[in-house]
Amino acid sequence: MEFFEVVDGQRAHRELRADPVPDELIERVLEAAVHAPSAENRQPWVFVVVRDEQIRLRIAELTAKIWQGGARDFSKPNTTQRLFDEVDRWATGGLAGAPVHIVVCGDTTRCPEMMLPSSIYPATQNLLLAARALGLGSLMSTLSMVTGAPFKDLLGLPDHVVPMALVPIGYPARSLGPPRRTPVAEVTHHDRW
Amino acid sequence: MEFFEVVDGQRAHRELRADPVPDELIERVLEAAVHAPSAENRQPWVFVVVRDEQIRLRIAELTAKIWQGGARDFSKPNTTQRLFDEVDRWATGGLAGAPVHIVVCGDTTRCPEMMLPSSIYPATQNLLLAARALGLGSLMSTLSMVTGAPFKDLLGLPDHVVPMALVPIGYPARSLGPPRRTPVAEVTHHDRW
Repeated sequence: MEFFEVVDGQRAHRELRADPVPDELIERVLEAAVHAPSAENRQPWVFVVVRDEQIRLRIAELTAKIWQGGARDFSKPNTTQRLFDEVDRWATGGLAGAPVHIVVCGDTTRCPEMMLPSSIYPATQNLLLAARALGLGSLMSTLSMVTGAPFKDLLGLPDHVVPMALVPIGYPARSLGPPRRTPVAEVTHHDRW
Repeated sequence: MEFFEVVDGQRAHRELRADPVPDELIERVLEAAVHAPSAENRQPWVFVVVRDEQIRLRIAELTAKIWQGGARDFSKPNTTQRLFDEVDRWATGGLAGAPVHIVVCGDTTRCPEMMLPSSIYPATQNLLLAARALGLGSLMSTLSMVTGAPFKDLLGLPDHVVPMALVPIGYPARSLGPPRRTPVAEVTHHDRW
């Protein structure tokens, strides 16, 4: 696919089919992820690729708890009813349906924790874009990270590894139109504010 | 350009030509940036596009101060001599030579500060990739952000706006080969750590 077609059309796909995703496509999206830039080229990313159904169900359960325990009320006034309903379905169980969950983590032995976001989120974005280029749907969520210790325990993450994003991947249940965005001119200043 | 050719070949270009970059190319990279996903679609990004030479020189000066005041010594043991020398030339003045500096900021009235990185860095990555797709060179640096108040004052940023990345853009002085990366298999775990 042509680059701008991928980048301009990327959307959060919350409804994914249960059909399995071939290993080579998952390897390809991870390959794109590790091609992101990183502070001092430290490449502090680590990925946990979860296909096991029990673990996916447990991730969904932990996430639902956070959602219902406060995030839901925090989110409601900030989103349109349509987006809210879609996120609500996803966060209360729908996310387990994605056949693959990629947990993107940062390794604090390779990079100080405060420097992780500027390396980990570019890698995650490469991953989302690559998924779209391969006809897969995905989204990035940081909601599950709020679950803290139970989430780390579930994945057996050592202390020096910080989970930073959950990316469920699968074939999209339906195609989505182009995303709506505030025009560039409204968020751009020249030379000074 | 084909998507994977862009994503797999992206590199930090620290040596850029002084030739001006057409406005429409800068608009195109910003258009790609705003197509990134963001928490609750809040789109908390704001861009300051600096072409003014005096402001670029002042950004370079502030950055050199941070570099020489500690970041340089912190970086040295972690990088190869070649990369270190390249970064050193860049951070001690070279960066002013880029004809355009884009400062990517987060707006805390649109999104709580702790949620900014997972939206701002994906947008910045889209920007870097789009630059490459258009034949431009760029890089993301968070070094200048450490300068704090003087940097915000220079750009006239209000209190609610947090500068998060500096992206100098221009035509590359030389072409760079493919980046070196640790293989995916070495940073991937399946189901559990």
